[in-house]
Amino acid sequence: MNSLAPSCGANRANTFADWMIAVQTQTENALARSLPAGEAIPNRLHQAMRYATLNGGKRVRPLLVFAAGDLTDAQPEQLEIAASAVEMIHVYSLVHDDLPCMDNDVLRRGRPTCHIEFDEPTALLVGDSLQSLAFELLARDICKESASAARQLDMIQLLAHASGSRGMAGGQAIDLDSVGKSLNQPELELMHALKTGALIRAAVLLGALCGSPLSSEARDALDRFAKRIGLLFQVVDDILDCTASTATLGKTAGKDAAADKPTYVSLLGIERARELADDLRTQALEALDVFGERGQRLIELTDFITHRKF
Amino acid sequence: MNSLAPSCGANRANTFADWMIAVQTQTENALARSLPAGEAIPNRLHQAMRYATLNGGKRVRPLLVFAAGDLTDAQPEQLEIAASAVEMIHVYSLVHDDLPCMDNDVLRRGRPTCHIEFDEPTALLVGDSLQSLAFELLARDICKESASAARQLDMIQLLAHASGSRGMAGGQAIDLDSVGKSLNQPELELMHALKTGALIRAAVLLGALCGSPLSSEARDALDRFAKRIGLLFQVVDDILDCTASTATLGKTAGKDAAADKPTYVSLLGIERARELADDLRTQALEALDVFGERGQRLIELTDFITHRKF
Repeated sequence: MNSLAPSCGANRANTFADWMIAVQTQTENALARSLPAGEAIPNRLHQAMRYATLNGGKRVRPLLVFAAGDLTDAQPEQLEIAASAVEMIHVYSLVHDDLPCMDNDVLRRGRPTCHIEFDEPTALLVGDSLQSLAFELLARDICKESASAARQLDMIQLLAHASGSRGMAGGQAIDLDSVGKSLNQPELELMHALKTGALIRAAVLLGALCGSPLSSEARDALDRFAKRIGLLFQVVDDILDCTASTATLGKTAGKDAAADKPTYVSLLGIERARELADDLRTQALEALDVFGERGQRLIELTDFITHRKF
Repeated sequence: MNSLAPSCGANRANTFADWMIAVQTQTENALARSLPAGEAIPNRLHQAMRYATLNGGKRVRPLLVFAAGDLTDAQPEQLEIAASAVEMIHVYSLVHDDLPCMDNDVLRRGRPTCHIEFDEPTALLVGDSLQSLAFELLARDICKESASAARQLDMIQLLAHASGSRGMAGGQAIDLDSVGKSLNQPELELMHALKTGALIRAAVLLGALCGSPLSSEARDALDRFAKRIGLLFQVVDDILDCTASTATLGKTAGKDAAADKPTYVSLLGIERARELADDLRTQALEALDVFGERGQRLIELTDFITHRKF
């Protein structure tokens, strides 16, 4: 294990910045290996899948998978499969959300969106195929000796539920319905708990599931953390959408306000949205108390998510 | 078990027509139970998922799942989960294929397509959510006591691979690329082996996987059958597309020819396409020899697929 390898278990001597780069690199390499080669038939589809997935993104969900894996001494080989699966689901959702019939966006991660660089039918198939591949990956020999096939089925069920109509896709449906409407805070929270929160929660729980079983007390605490961090991520996203520039974000800034979509900022104003982010950060960190120093990377990630600028 | 219950194991006394109706009914009921209720939030998405999935279709893939289950004494409770999962993947592909950016079709199973009855973004999310739900279903307690979690993982892997870029979605990508091009027979076969064949093959193998393990000789024979029946289905589809009416098909007839898509009929002419269908039928039936009378439903289904009029 070189000095940039992700920390696992006791090896938490690296700085957070080093650890983050190491996880991002490991995830990028794992994704590159798991995606079909660009030369494999059908070439254009496979090239588009690689274009949409590789070379970009903060990889927040993979970072959460790896950080949560610290809590249960999970092995990096298993974490990188779980991280790849959850990131593929995330990327498929971005590709479909950017389509003309949804958000009709042309810029993503600082580059033309998939349907602009390729074409609309290809982008549709890229999303569809990334979703299949995520489940194919998780059904493979991720757990080998150290965890049971039953645990693997739990992971597949968790990710499938978080992705579907009672998770991410359902949140997107509520989002579509909400354009031009005024939602109250509980309604906005339900939308985001599904749209962004479900997959972020799944990333945290999947990471922990890669290692030894947690006590039911620890599992409850982790789930509390996972829900708070999902909401925190969205509140910060809404703040950035109205304060950061398109160049910094790598995606079109201000588009939620322009589309008359309800956000935490439009509901609460920028100051109270910032206070809400602080409260959620505090609650998330409290939930991690039970894990002691094993929770170090999750604590650091919580601060990173709170203070990120893009 | 009433007289219309699907035959399992020794119970093959029903006529084929009775058996078919019983399997279709059981599949319809299982799908209705597995889909979220139309009143569950987000209502519109769930209503659209039910609209696209229920009340329609020949349910060819579920019929193949149940017929193949006869070979391994599979239990109906397990077969109906596998049948629902494979049918959800099929329905998701229809909903996405009908979208304006793909085939832009307005009629499916005799009714307005999903994006016509609802709207385009909802139809996109319907397809996405049905795919997630298929894997969620398969990861549940399908096998309980009688089959192992490892077998369940095999089933998920099989269905995910058959759905993705090296299966159904990949075939659709080749199809898109082929418009206006002249493909030779091997190229056309590769396209259909992926686009239609992969999921039909998966249906057959999933059905058998629900029961006792097959010998490697029997598994090879079943795979040979599964590949032939997939191709046969497509050749007959191409013949019907240019000979049957829109009213009979319940979907727009003649659209492949109108879209200048290569088909077996455009490549071989109608007579040679019919000869090819006969040859494939013979080869499919030969592959079933090894199963003796347990293969009865698969034999009958092969004839049904060959001689169907819609």
